[in-house]
Amino acid sequence: MHPLAVHHIGHAVSDLDAAVDLYTGLLGAVFEHRTTLADQGVEAATVHLGESRIELVTPTGDDTPVGRFLAKRGPGMHHVAVQVPDIRVAIADAEASGAQVIDSEPRRGILGLEVAFIHPDSVAGVLVELVQTTDGADGG
Amino acid sequence: MHPLAVHHIGHAVSDLDAAVDLYTGLLGAVFEHRTTLADQGVEAATVHLGESRIELVTPTGDDTPVGRFLAKRGPGMHHVAVQVPDIRVAIADAEASGAQVIDSEPRRGILGLEVAFIHPDSVAGVLVELVQTTDGADGG
Repeated sequence: MHPLAVHHIGHAVSDLDAAVDLYTGLLGAVFEHRTTLADQGVEAATVHLGESRIELVTPTGDDTPVGRFLAKRGPGMHHVAVQVPDIRVAIADAEASGAQVIDSEPRRGILGLEVAFIHPDSVAGVLVELVQTTDGADGG
Repeated sequence: MHPLAVHHIGHAVSDLDAAVDLYTGLLGAVFEHRTTLADQGVEAATVHLGESRIELVTPTGDDTPVGRFLAKRGPGMHHVAVQVPDIRVAIADAEASGAQVIDSEPRRGILGLEVAFIHPDSVAGVLVELVQTTDGADGG
């Protein structure tokens, strides 16, 4: 795998509006984008923290992955998204390393990204999202 | 506060050698530095994930902040370090916002950084480490 950089950090929250206010207020972040990802069961907002990006996610219902995460652990860091040049190569590399790849085929994420998740059991408790930008964009 | 970027993500692990191998193997990271921070009760290793940095931390004993974190939650993301141009200004800004700043005076972190932590109760469950590089370096 050839990581380019951390594309964003995912932060699971129970109140998306309050979280955006917290980042733009306390931490001096700049709001970027907000959307609903129905297939992931989340409403998401991205903010820029200087040159970096945070994705704030809140579940659309209790019976969703992020809903169960919040019920079990409360709000906090949820995933680390690693940008790669070719997500299909990265998926194949991860599978060849014996990692539990949740998405053997990429799916569509925020900002037009192609994404695939690696199970936290394979990365010392961290849910890793592989992301590839499309059309030469960095997703914002 | 004027965030420049996420300086690193802290990942708490129970086996530092295994975690370095995981990052350099599965995720294609490059080892940077390893040290013990006695006053924080951790042994730490940093790796570069492309342009980004991960700090892997393991406790020097059970009765340390990271030791208690692992006992309660298991391995996983532990903190987000935000680089700021002037850490004393950032501490004052955070305190003025009503945030619970753990270190009212900066202390010394990895890579020669000046650091100060904000309690996760003030940032929707995320432990934030403010960092200022010294002598014009980015800490590596």
